[in-house]
Amino acid sequence: MKVIKFGGSSLANGDAFAQAIAIIKADADRQVVVTSAPGKRFADDIKVTDLLINFAKLTINGHTATDIIAAIFGRYQAIAHHFGVQDDELSELHELLVALPQATYPNNDYLMAAFKAHGERLNAKLMAIILNHQGVPARYVDPLAAGFRVTGTPNNAVISPEAYVNLAKLDLKPNERIIFPGFYGYTLSGYIATFSRGGSDVTGAILARTFNADLYENFTDVDAIYSANPNLVPDPLPIATMTYREMRELSYAGFSVFHDEALIPAIQGQIPINVKNTWHPEKPGTMIVPEHDFQPERILTGIASGRHFAALYLHKYLLNKENGFTLRILRILNDNNVSYEHMPSGIDDLTIIFDRDKLTDEQVDAICTAVQQEINPDRLEWIDDYAIVMLVGEGMAHTPGVMMNATAPLAANGISLQMINQGASQISIMLGTRREDANQAVQLIYQQFLTDQED
Amino acid sequence: MKVIKFGGSSLANGDAFAQAIAIIKADADRQVVVTSAPGKRFADDIKVTDLLINFAKLTINGHTATDIIAAIFGRYQAIAHHFGVQDDELSELHELLVALPQATYPNNDYLMAAFKAHGERLNAKLMAIILNHQGVPARYVDPLAAGFRVTGTPNNAVISPEAYVNLAKLDLKPNERIIFPGFYGYTLSGYIATFSRGGSDVTGAILARTFNADLYENFTDVDAIYSANPNLVPDPLPIATMTYREMRELSYAGFSVFHDEALIPAIQGQIPINVKNTWHPEKPGTMIVPEHDFQPERILTGIASGRHFAALYLHKYLLNKENGFTLRILRILNDNNVSYEHMPSGIDDLTIIFDRDKLTDEQVDAICTAVQQEINPDRLEWIDDYAIVMLVGEGMAHTPGVMMNATAPLAANGISLQMINQGASQISIMLGTRREDANQAVQLIYQQFLTDQED
Repeated sequence: MKVIKFGGSSLANGDAFAQAIAIIKADADRQVVVTSAPGKRFADDIKVTDLLINFAKLTINGHTATDIIAAIFGRYQAIAHHFGVQDDELSELHELLVALPQATYPNNDYLMAAFKAHGERLNAKLMAIILNHQGVPARYVDPLAAGFRVTGTPNNAVISPEAYVNLAKLDLKPNERIIFPGFYGYTLSGYIATFSRGGSDVTGAILARTFNADLYENFTDVDAIYSANPNLVPDPLPIATMTYREMRELSYAGFSVFHDEALIPAIQGQIPINVKNTWHPEKPGTMIVPEHDFQPERILTGIASGRHFAALYLHKYLLNKENGFTLRILRILNDNNVSYEHMPSGIDDLTIIFDRDKLTDEQVDAICTAVQQEINPDRLEWIDDYAIVMLVGEGMAHTPGVMMNATAPLAANGISLQMINQGASQISIMLGTRREDANQAVQLIYQQFLTDQED
Repeated sequence: MKVIKFGGSSLANGDAFAQAIAIIKADADRQVVVTSAPGKRFADDIKVTDLLINFAKLTINGHTATDIIAAIFGRYQAIAHHFGVQDDELSELHELLVALPQATYPNNDYLMAAFKAHGERLNAKLMAIILNHQGVPARYVDPLAAGFRVTGTPNNAVISPEAYVNLAKLDLKPNERIIFPGFYGYTLSGYIATFSRGGSDVTGAILARTFNADLYENFTDVDAIYSANPNLVPDPLPIATMTYREMRELSYAGFSVFHDEALIPAIQGQIPINVKNTWHPEKPGTMIVPEHDFQPERILTGIASGRHFAALYLHKYLLNKENGFTLRILRILNDNNVSYEHMPSGIDDLTIIFDRDKLTDEQVDAICTAVQQEINPDRLEWIDDYAIVMLVGEGMAHTPGVMMNATAPLAANGISLQMINQGASQISIMLGTRREDANQAVQLIYQQFLTDQED
């Protein structure tokens, strides 16, 4: 069997639903369908999830939200009407929306989670209604009834191991499709909690692992995962096949097509993932597979850049003779509730790399001041515009010259590297650059590795 | 003026003393002379410092040590007789040795330090006696009288800032040489404390900084610092000039000609250092200079390998989303009184590199067990035979291709790299290998960078 998940743009309107339904119908193995909330229909459209967040904020502030309820319900109505489904069949959807502000929640984080989750919940219900309307037997399965239990915080949930036990009891029938809402589950005390944004990918992966699926199909709005960001490189090569860990490394540095937390259940179950385009289901898309099923075709699979980093550079003579030096720094970070990404060290220097998006200016000042006072380094530099360029490829592991081919064009173009890090996995090289240089670095490395090979 | 320091083999016997005295006489600027203890005269000889350590151990165990006192004193006698200095002039030296077991010490660490220091102390006194005997006005200066104050532990002292103030009051006279014993100073409560072994280099550097010397000459038994270990590479190229930080990086990974702690006063005073051969003073030796005085002649200045490392490899999926992960590990290390060297990280993995010589097997078991229990990684591997190969050169900073030229021959010879780390300084590349591969890696990299250039 296959688990098939549709992204928000693949379920944004009637035309998109029609595409999705054709895809479901085309393969009887597509037994479990996971829905996202309706996404954008055009560039300036508002996603249903964002409408729901506004609805939640109005509720928290004690306002009524008649207009926004109408706007949200209108999105589902329009899809239903496209298939000739009448409003009386949608009464439950409307009631669920209206009931949201009436319910009680332990706190506003739970309220926000419950509101957000209804984009997926209503879309799954609607999908089941339309499929049955079209003569395709389909059953909506509610995460609460199915025992889809999560732990963690209300808006950053983690699947609970017992969920797998509960979900396995779902009765799959040969001629019936299960329609399951993505993005959320229920805490042990019975409240809705969502995964982080884009988390419907995670739901699909959990179901794929539960049923030991032959394939987890992830339908989105691109023909493939590309070897570089199409906004930086025109017509980048598509990636036909990649490994889980290649995907993970590329996700880290900016690839956002597939949610990185969704890789864990897939890895645990060794379920292959196929990222495909709802609008071109005939195209092969990108396969994400276990390492042992993979033969690299190219040295580099992809190049990513994350431009949202910052770095603290410290130099102190005979630094590494000081016991507990790093521990003191980490305690300072911990005391200021700051986490860091990497900490490459030289003999007498240490660079601590941060995700700048997760740091306030006050935190930056606090940690720099504390480090200066407690550590008294010979040199302390805060580099606010740090970027990480990540070269990823299983094919790199035993290919000499990758580092030269990557760094030579950067040097020739005056791009200085703050850091080079190749770890034990040997399938990625991490380069630290100034933020202003990151895009050009990606372009130059792309030309070096991925243009020439096609000539 | 110049500060000139002689190593142990340069003061091991009468012939060596004669060489040293000729060197002192040859330049009136050599106003401050720092002595080591007499070293080995032949391959299986015992250094005076090691005799003193045995003397200390006998004393600690309550034994008398008449024979060993005679052996130590005999070394000085033989040197004195070489210059026609009679025993009656050496009575103070003998008295100082005999007095050592009579004195009281706060604990045995202080006792050990005091015993060890007398190798240098007696050699400085002897040098002053012989020079005056030869008509060269010379004055022994005692570290206690000169205010050479140190802090730290008895056998791992650190210079105290007030020492510079005190030492500056030493009255240098144009026609008089100051003879100063290396290796030790006095704690604030008046006890002898030594630097770590080889610390006479440190004493010389402190005096060079005190007097803002034009040059700090460090006389030893090699013609130069070589670009690789002569035990690994036959006839390696000598290094004509290098920077302080190149020396520091090479010291870290195994170059032992010059004590790395001695670089600090030199850097603080920007004093150039000249490492020369006592037996060939006409040869230029190796200059160690500030960065701004340096023009690299070659891409690589030197290649070192440290074979005494070990590494703990950890892999955990989504590791870097776990706040405080590294902090927990460092606390485990701290609780077990273990310090680490480097901690390169990938996206989901972390390698912690240790100096294996500083770790007991019990500590290894304790930290691995604690990490497994508290962190529960997906994978934990202890690599007991880790080596670090260090490529060092100011010329590398903006030369593309160094990484390829270094790694290609290793790959071609089946040497796999556990880690590549190029930090912010850009003058060194650190490669992690298996211990068994380290020597061959040095040889291959030497051939690549330093043989071809000479053809």
